[in-house]
Amino acid sequence: MRYLTTRDIDYLAIGAAVLGSGGGGDPYLGRLMAQRAIIEKGDVRLIEVDEVPDEELVIPSAMMGAPAVMLEKLPNGQEPEKAFRAVESFFGKKAFATMSIEAGGINSCIPVYTAARLGLPLVDADGMGRAFPEIPMVTFSIGGVSASPMVCCDEKGNKVVLETINNAWVETLSRTVTVAMGLSSMIGLYVMNGKTLKELSIRGTISLAIEIGKRIIQSNERKISPVDSILKVTEGYRLFEGKVTDVQRDLTTGFVRGKADFEGIDGYRGSVLNLEFQNENLVAWLDNEPCAMVPDLITILDRESGSPITTEHLRYGQRTVIIGMPCAPIWRTGKGLNQVGPRYFKYDIDYEPIEDLVKRRSL
Amino acid sequence: MRYLTTRDIDYLAIGAAVLGSGGGGDPYLGRLMAQRAIIEKGDVRLIEVDEVPDEELVIPSAMMGAPAVMLEKLPNGQEPEKAFRAVESFFGKKAFATMSIEAGGINSCIPVYTAARLGLPLVDADGMGRAFPEIPMVTFSIGGVSASPMVCCDEKGNKVVLETINNAWVETLSRTVTVAMGLSSMIGLYVMNGKTLKELSIRGTISLAIEIGKRIIQSNERKISPVDSILKVTEGYRLFEGKVTDVQRDLTTGFVRGKADFEGIDGYRGSVLNLEFQNENLVAWLDNEPCAMVPDLITILDRESGSPITTEHLRYGQRTVIIGMPCAPIWRTGKGLNQVGPRYFKYDIDYEPIEDLVKRRSL
Repeated sequence: MRYLTTRDIDYLAIGAAVLGSGGGGDPYLGRLMAQRAIIEKGDVRLIEVDEVPDEELVIPSAMMGAPAVMLEKLPNGQEPEKAFRAVESFFGKKAFATMSIEAGGINSCIPVYTAARLGLPLVDADGMGRAFPEIPMVTFSIGGVSASPMVCCDEKGNKVVLETINNAWVETLSRTVTVAMGLSSMIGLYVMNGKTLKELSIRGTISLAIEIGKRIIQSNERKISPVDSILKVTEGYRLFEGKVTDVQRDLTTGFVRGKADFEGIDGYRGSVLNLEFQNENLVAWLDNEPCAMVPDLITILDRESGSPITTEHLRYGQRTVIIGMPCAPIWRTGKGLNQVGPRYFKYDIDYEPIEDLVKRRSL
Repeated sequence: MRYLTTRDIDYLAIGAAVLGSGGGGDPYLGRLMAQRAIIEKGDVRLIEVDEVPDEELVIPSAMMGAPAVMLEKLPNGQEPEKAFRAVESFFGKKAFATMSIEAGGINSCIPVYTAARLGLPLVDADGMGRAFPEIPMVTFSIGGVSASPMVCCDEKGNKVVLETINNAWVETLSRTVTVAMGLSSMIGLYVMNGKTLKELSIRGTISLAIEIGKRIIQSNERKISPVDSILKVTEGYRLFEGKVTDVQRDLTTGFVRGKADFEGIDGYRGSVLNLEFQNENLVAWLDNEPCAMVPDLITILDRESGSPITTEHLRYGQRTVIIGMPCAPIWRTGKGLNQVGPRYFKYDIDYEPIEDLVKRRSL
């Protein structure tokens, strides 16, 4: 058990965006919201998964939609707790804690905001160990936890409560509602008890994100590159260094779908990396061969500062380092790959772990 | 007070479809559902508006979406009461009765079904005196009644509860949910107390529909045309007799949008009538001059049987009589026309009452 201070949120926002694999929302907004809530309400208690009693309830809190939209359509600040309370009201008892669904700039910070506002502890865990674009893509879902009852709230004051027959219908209905709300909403969903949490959650995601963020910020203070330090703590690989030569994005489906091309610099001169994303980075091809793919993590870092660049912030001319990191082991099981492997995202390729792809290339 | 029998439902389904102005759903399905429920649960008590105590609650019950879809995607039968009970649960007391939102083959019969299943009386009234395509287009809305909390249930078992800041947001969110549910859902909404009901509802719609239906069926039994008899009881006008020469329909927005053309026969030979609809018939042009327009009622009848033909059943070659009927007076007020007049539906014409249009043509 420890307390999260506003300084920790500086680290968390940036570190979670590294784990966010290009998605999980803009760290700037998530950080501001969480820090304001901590200043107003006090530091947030971060608890271990094992500190949640088996029969107590945990309700994750998150933002849904196209993160790019959040930059223009700001939350009013009531939505996360309104969604949380509406979900809680189904169960006839108070929730014990909140937590993250996914690692990302917005979606690691929104639960801190909710925790601070409601005076609840935050569980040091999430349901992905990274970010993914669709509601059912959490380890909880693999274990049979229902995403519903799920609540979407918008900044105008509208609230929609979904009770569905399965998690695919939660995705379909909440996505269409979120699009109609203006492409973003704040949500509460995947209520589970402590026992289920212990079985299914990915542990330590919040403290790992804080550790990554701390290394980036401290390296910057000492004017050294944080990339090696990030790779060490995430067991990741440097895949490429290059300049963005093209970015294409489309928001109309409620996702940020698109692709980006990178031209190699320095040791990577003469090579090209192509990246495709749906909120999160999905597959990277180095000179037309896959070099990393979902569910492994692919993250673009600013080459100077090591700061993660989310898919909505990719711009022509940016100089970047592209890194890959192994995903949580549960995603490499048959059930995991069915849910978030490259074939789920319509790529006609079999999943290969990033370690194997890196080893093959270096032979 | 009287009881509705299965025979009354034969009359109601067909008569309500005449008032439905081309919309309000297919009479066949609505009739079957209501009659089955009456056979299983007993006749339904039809009460006057004034029989509802001022402080008691009434919850309307309806189907939403493109009526054409209901012909293929059948309800499972649980949805109407599930939606009703979910709305009721917001108010901490049992509802006194249910009622129709609009007159139409489906939407006059669904409340009978709900009333029979739940053992509640049905109020002899509705919120339109006809059918309209959008949720806010009810007299309740003009009087400031909130459509929300509103509940949409689908035949798969999904339930969505909406609490919104205004009725336009109920329309936006419930429409997108209904489209995602497969273009139709069963809904509960516009809860009001007896006092509000007495102020705002259009009285006697159910008994008027039954009377119209009775005249059609009894005329058919005597092998005479029911058209004059319908016009007498609705104070309507014969606008045209003609053959359908073209029909265009598009379902992708969750409405049946389209147009139909008619070529005159007998006394109308040489003339052409063009009709546009959005679930309901909106404007009819006779030889390029408007001859009837919303909010007045325009209904297509089969020339032989006098049976109403809904927009989803219009077919090439049908021989028809097109009739127009004056709407309820509240729709002809400034507030009423703002909400359902021709300009609301993007027609660049001022509303003219059907009586005036008929008088001008006959001069």
